[in-house]
Amino acid sequence: MSTQGKVITCKAAVAWMPGKPLKIEVVQVDPPKDHEVRIKMMYSGVCHTDWAYLYETGQSMTPRPFPVVLDMRGRNIKAKAKCHSPKTNHCRKNWANTQMGVLADGTSRISYKGQQVYQFLGVCSFSQYSVVPDTSLAKIRHDAPLDKVVLLGCGVSTGYGAAINTAKVESGSSCAVFGLGAVGLSAVMGCKAAGATTIIAIDKNTRKFQKAQEMGATMCINPDDHRNIKIQDLVKEKTEGGVDFALECVGNTAVMSQALESTIDAWGVCVIAGWTETEKLSVEVEQLLLGRTIKGTYFGGWKGADAVPALVNKYMAKELKLDEFITHSFTLSEVNTAFQLFKSGDSSVRRVILST
Amino acid sequence: MSTQGKVITCKAAVAWMPGKPLKIEVVQVDPPKDHEVRIKMMYSGVCHTDWAYLYETGQSMTPRPFPVVLDMRGRNIKAKAKCHSPKTNHCRKNWANTQMGVLADGTSRISYKGQQVYQFLGVCSFSQYSVVPDTSLAKIRHDAPLDKVVLLGCGVSTGYGAAINTAKVESGSSCAVFGLGAVGLSAVMGCKAAGATTIIAIDKNTRKFQKAQEMGATMCINPDDHRNIKIQDLVKEKTEGGVDFALECVGNTAVMSQALESTIDAWGVCVIAGWTETEKLSVEVEQLLLGRTIKGTYFGGWKGADAVPALVNKYMAKELKLDEFITHSFTLSEVNTAFQLFKSGDSSVRRVILST
Repeated sequence: MSTQGKVITCKAAVAWMPGKPLKIEVVQVDPPKDHEVRIKMMYSGVCHTDWAYLYETGQSMTPRPFPVVLDMRGRNIKAKAKCHSPKTNHCRKNWANTQMGVLADGTSRISYKGQQVYQFLGVCSFSQYSVVPDTSLAKIRHDAPLDKVVLLGCGVSTGYGAAINTAKVESGSSCAVFGLGAVGLSAVMGCKAAGATTIIAIDKNTRKFQKAQEMGATMCINPDDHRNIKIQDLVKEKTEGGVDFALECVGNTAVMSQALESTIDAWGVCVIAGWTETEKLSVEVEQLLLGRTIKGTYFGGWKGADAVPALVNKYMAKELKLDEFITHSFTLSEVNTAFQLFKSGDSSVRRVILST
Repeated sequence: MSTQGKVITCKAAVAWMPGKPLKIEVVQVDPPKDHEVRIKMMYSGVCHTDWAYLYETGQSMTPRPFPVVLDMRGRNIKAKAKCHSPKTNHCRKNWANTQMGVLADGTSRISYKGQQVYQFLGVCSFSQYSVVPDTSLAKIRHDAPLDKVVLLGCGVSTGYGAAINTAKVESGSSCAVFGLGAVGLSAVMGCKAAGATTIIAIDKNTRKFQKAQEMGATMCINPDDHRNIKIQDLVKEKTEGGVDFALECVGNTAVMSQALESTIDAWGVCVIAGWTETEKLSVEVEQLLLGRTIKGTYFGGWKGADAVPALVNKYMAKELKLDEFITHSFTLSEVNTAFQLFKSGDSSVRRVILST
C-alpha cells in the first residue's frame, strides 16, 4: 500500500535531553514537502558528533533544540552540498535551518504525540524513516552493500577527503595523522592513496595501531610512550624537521596545536578534520609566518551528490577499504550500548545501526 | 686604493640597548669570509620590524643580543632564500645564526672599539658598509634607481607577494587589506595586479586612504567610523558574506582574527603578512572547519635572488609602483627622526636613509 501523502509511524531513537540516554519511541514522520524526500533508513552509524551533541552540548557543541533524533548518515547517503562553485563543497541552502534541526520551512517532519522532534543537522538517521532535503541525497549503485557504504555518509569520506582534497597530500611526501578513529584511519588511507611514503599514525590507544598499519601507516606512535619529548618534536625528529602534511582527526585544540607544530616550516600544511564548534585554537603566529598553513575540512571537501557514488565505486573496485572499519553491529534498540562502546576506547572504530 | 682584505672604518647607527635611540658611531667592518660579501650600503629604509625590535623587544619580538646595527635592506638588495625547493622561498642555511645577528662562523663582521656589534637578521643596513652572506644578495640592473628599488628589499616585495604568491589572489575576486603601511599598500597593489575587482582597504588612519586608492583600493574603511558593527561583519555586509582573500598587514593578533573572520566561509583565505614573533593568535576552530585557510607569508614568497631583479624590471616597466611609497628622505644621522615619524602615524609610508 502506498504511503504517499500519508504519515508514517515508525521507531526512532529520541534524545529527550542532553546528557541522557536515547529512548526508542514510536514517532510520526510526515510526508515530504517541496524539494524534500522521505527515505527509509536502512543503516546508520554512531560518530563522535552524535556523542558530543548528546553529552557535551554547550561545551564542544553549540546548543541546539531538544528533543532531537540524532545522526546524519544513512541509506541514500546524504550529500553535503550541491553548490556549483568548484572551490567548495559547502552548500548554504537552508544552512541555518539545518543547523537548528529543521527543514526549509522552519519545521521538522518528525513528531512524537504531536510534539515536534528536531532532526539533527537536517538528517537524523536514528529513525526508521526520515524526510531530508533533496540536496542531501546521493544516488548510488544498486549492488552496493548498504551495511558497508553507509560509512561513506560521514567519517570515512571526511578523513579520506581531508588527505586527498583538503591537504592535497603529494606523492612521496610525509604525513602525520593525529587520532585513529574512523576519520583518522581514513585519513591514513587517504595519505597512502595519495602516494605519501611516510605516514605516522598517532594515538594514545595502541589497540588502533594494527588497523592503522592495515590502512597504510608506516609508523605508529603512542605519545604516552615518550613523555620526555613533545609529540611534535618527536615527529620532527623522525622526519628531518617535520612532516609535509599533518591531519588532526580528534577535535581537540591541544592536539591541533601539536599537529600544526609537527609540520615542517616553509611549506607544512595542517588540516583540521576533527570537529569542535565552540573552542578556540591558540596558534603561535610565527608558526604561520615561517610558512605553515592551517585549514579545515568539511566532509573531506567532497561534493556528496557526485562524490559519494564515485567513492562507492572505488569501494566496489576494492580501491577503498570499508569492511575493516566495522567491528560491531547493533539494532536500533541497542543504540545506547553502541554509544557506550564508542566512548570506552574499545578498538572498534565504527558501529552500524540496523534501523529496521 | 683597494680595501680588499682590510678593515673598513665607517659610520653606522648602533642600537646600544632596547628602548633607546640609535647612536651614530664610527665602526670597523671586517673583510668578508668564505661565502660572504662586503657591500657598500647606498640606501636603506625604516620598517616596523626595526622599530619593534628597538622598542618592543621581549614583547612582540624575541630578544636578541645588543648592541646591534638594525635594518635589513639596502643596495644589492638581500635575497631571503636560495633554496632549491619550488614550494618555498625559505632558506635554512645559517638560519639560526642569522636570527641571532651573526654570520656563519658565529661572529659578526662589525665592531666598535673591539666590541662585537651584532648584525640584525644578518644584514644590518644602517651601516655604510656591511658584510652579508652571499645567499642574501640579488644582482639587479645597473640603470635601476637605487633610492627607489631599495624598497624591494622588504616591505613592498612582502605585501605585493603576499597577495600574488601566498594568497594567490584570483581575477575577479574580492579582497580586504588590513593595515595600510608599506606592506598593506603593496598588498593592495598586488591584489589589483592579480585582477581582484573588489579591494577593501582598512586602516584607522584615514590619511592613508588616498594612497590606497592610487594603489587600487575600490573602497576604504576606517573601523572607527563604524563603532556599532565589527569590522569583519561590515566587510561581510559589503561583500555578500565575506571576501575571498584577506591580508593582515599590521602584525596585531586581534586584527588577524578580524581578517580571518572577514573572509567568506567555504573558501576564504587569510594571509598573515604583519610580523609578530612572540604572540599567539586565537582562532575559532569553526572558522577553519567551515572552509577557511590561514597562512603566513615571508618576504611575500619571493625567492629573492631571481625575484628581486624581476621586480626591479617590473618597476622599470612601470608595472609596479615604488615612487609613491617614498614621502621623506633622511641621512643616516637623522635615523631617529625617521623612527619617530614612523610611529607618529604620519601619512608617510616609507623613508629612505641615505647611508653615505
